[in-house]
Amino acid sequence: MQNDTVSGGTSTPRLRRRKGSNEVPPEVDRGNGNHLLVNDNRKYKSMLIRTYSTVWMIGGFVLIIYMGHLYIWAMVVVIQIYMAKELFSLLRKAHEDSHLPGFRLLNWHFFFTAMLFVYGRILSQRLVNTVTTDKFLYKLVGRLIKYHMVTCYFLYIAGFMWFILALKKKMYKYQFGQYAWTHMILIVVFTQSSFTVANIFEGIFWFLLPASLIVINDIADYIFGFFFGRTPLIKLSPKKTWEGFIGASVTTMISAFLLANIMGRFQWLTCPRKDLSTGWLHCDPGLLFKPEYFAVPEWLFPLWFPWREISILPVQWHALCLGLFASIIAPFGGFFASGFKRAFKIKDFGDSIPGHGGITDRMDCQMVMAVFAYIYHQSFIVPQSLSIEMIMDQILINLPFEDQRALYTKLGQIIMERQFGES
Amino acid sequence: MQNDTVSGGTSTPRLRRRKGSNEVPPEVDRGNGNHLLVNDNRKYKSMLIRTYSTVWMIGGFVLIIYMGHLYIWAMVVVIQIYMAKELFSLLRKAHEDSHLPGFRLLNWHFFFTAMLFVYGRILSQRLVNTVTTDKFLYKLVGRLIKYHMVTCYFLYIAGFMWFILALKKKMYKYQFGQYAWTHMILIVVFTQSSFTVANIFEGIFWFLLPASLIVINDIADYIFGFFFGRTPLIKLSPKKTWEGFIGASVTTMISAFLLANIMGRFQWLTCPRKDLSTGWLHCDPGLLFKPEYFAVPEWLFPLWFPWREISILPVQWHALCLGLFASIIAPFGGFFASGFKRAFKIKDFGDSIPGHGGITDRMDCQMVMAVFAYIYHQSFIVPQSLSIEMIMDQILINLPFEDQRALYTKLGQIIMERQFGES
Repeated sequence: MQNDTVSGGTSTPRLRRRKGSNEVPPEVDRGNGNHLLVNDNRKYKSMLIRTYSTVWMIGGFVLIIYMGHLYIWAMVVVIQIYMAKELFSLLRKAHEDSHLPGFRLLNWHFFFTAMLFVYGRILSQRLVNTVTTDKFLYKLVGRLIKYHMVTCYFLYIAGFMWFILALKKKMYKYQFGQYAWTHMILIVVFTQSSFTVANIFEGIFWFLLPASLIVINDIADYIFGFFFGRTPLIKLSPKKTWEGFIGASVTTMISAFLLANIMGRFQWLTCPRKDLSTGWLHCDPGLLFKPEYFAVPEWLFPLWFPWREISILPVQWHALCLGLFASIIAPFGGFFASGFKRAFKIKDFGDSIPGHGGITDRMDCQMVMAVFAYIYHQSFIVPQSLSIEMIMDQILINLPFEDQRALYTKLGQIIMERQFGES
Repeated sequence: MQNDTVSGGTSTPRLRRRKGSNEVPPEVDRGNGNHLLVNDNRKYKSMLIRTYSTVWMIGGFVLIIYMGHLYIWAMVVVIQIYMAKELFSLLRKAHEDSHLPGFRLLNWHFFFTAMLFVYGRILSQRLVNTVTTDKFLYKLVGRLIKYHMVTCYFLYIAGFMWFILALKKKMYKYQFGQYAWTHMILIVVFTQSSFTVANIFEGIFWFLLPASLIVINDIADYIFGFFFGRTPLIKLSPKKTWEGFIGASVTTMISAFLLANIMGRFQWLTCPRKDLSTGWLHCDPGLLFKPEYFAVPEWLFPLWFPWREISILPVQWHALCLGLFASIIAPFGGFFASGFKRAFKIKDFGDSIPGHGGITDRMDCQMVMAVFAYIYHQSFIVPQSLSIEMIMDQILINLPFEDQRALYTKLGQIIMERQFGES
């Protein structure tokens, strides 16, 4: 281990490999050391494959961002299905399953129930805003929302009863184990993706910035570790070094600050999407995205420096918080995943992306980040800008017209009372 | 097995024992058959203990209902802590734990984080209604609600990081297993109790009726099975019979209809509690609890029958739905628990209640029921009565005063537009 982590520098780059997907328990690693040095050729070929698929991924990602919210959502769903597939297949034990026909299907029943539960809400809220012109559709959607929870509950209960009726003697322990792990997998997959989708509709900015910061941190960590890595950081990932960690943090913070300035200038990224159309977005993005101008002190920059003042968006300060989290806490998602892989002696979660391993391997830190971005947005951003509209939505969707009027009257009274109370 | 379930009748009552807590895998049962017949004395003693503790439980329960919402809530919390304790201790493996000092504590860290998350919301909403007179407190509570989610998130992340930093070589698999099971346990314990507490504050009726129906169904199932049980129902619980199941269903449905009529007449049970005081409750319980009078057809009842008309509360029809669920679907919670116990070869989940086994053993069906009662209430009861007030709460708590006025103006415009549009 000592040898493995401290060697560092540029002298033995071939021993260093990208963290995460190619990680192998250290015992195996040491045993194969010589083997890897000999197999140089294959190593570079795999790096080529990896680079190639990375370029394709980034290209596709940019295109999808350009196409809009619904397409990004679809991408999240696809990723999510792949993740569930990879994780479900880790559970599978061929011998036991052959005695339980149809038992596999149950996993997917729960998966799609969870999907209906999580996305039904987001979808129907936007749907209401899309169909407000048609009275009949408006009412229909209202009703769908009303019985959404009860429908999902009965779908879940149906799965629950199915599970119990499918219990087979001598397989109890296996089946209960499967049931528990299925739930854990669904929690992991859906926590992440539901928060991600919520972020997307709050404005692509709140999805794109956090996701980019994780990628940047990952790459910077790799590069800094590669060139300066000396001091091991955590036993769980012997390739992680303090130098990589600190270098990546600084890089991520700077990137967060700069990226927020760039991304914050496109309405396509900053406006929330309240319906299901894919048309162009116009909105008042609010104070957070209005540039503030600061004069650059002359002693700071030489005279030939072209800008005499810089413009800063207030959202950039928030971006620093996201950067801090992405570089300090999100990596623990990666440690967790690599610990998990080590515990169950697997190399990768799957083989969906050539050279990268499974999709799950690429998503470990993204999950922690997406949840944080959502909660940060809800706690520190929304209360300053959006909640009036959210409450209006509630009133107009959930209440019948008479109740809307009753509420209006009541609110009027309370406001009057307060105003008199204050003056 | 055949012998065990078909014997029935009153001739061999000593072989039958109450389902659930005393259940033992059938292999063990058959092996001990003779032993049990010999040990008659101890058997009756255990039944005595069981009856004794049941009487105490019911007495205590009635007292707590009388004392009010806060005490019922406290009871739920105590039950919940015991359940978590029982389930956590099932996980424990002494040998492994001796190598992981402090690792046990992590379970309870997650437990209390979940508690803060689940109850923080309910508590703070009521708190706002309790302190509305004091402006400073009002603002303070508003702030607490605002940062509630972020606080819970960081407590969770702290636990998550603690877990990763506590990972110890060669214990990975044990530790990850513990982590997953801890989450499953918390989900089971908190789903149930958070819904239960929500029900309590919607009106004790919505907690008391479902809980009573489960107890009634349980007892009726036992009695009908004892006297008429012939046909086995499900392999998982060899003591369950179709006769018991159907008899219990009918009993539960009738009880639901009658109990709703009685409980529905006490404002103490039907009024929602919107603050944290324990004082007497007055409210307009709404149409659901207003009696409707029906003339009894003369041919149906003899002349000496004292009542010429009967009064029915509309809520009684809803009670029938709860009864149907309590007797048909909720028992699957029991099947699940007994399958689980069989899978992991444990007799009871704990030994907290003399003669009954663990608290968890008594809660299996209650959990399924509490969730259903909540969702049923939210989907079919609330939209007819309460949502104006819920939205008002949101407006007055979450929005600053200027936004309240802005919302009022906006709502006024929309209502005007609609009215003109319609006329």
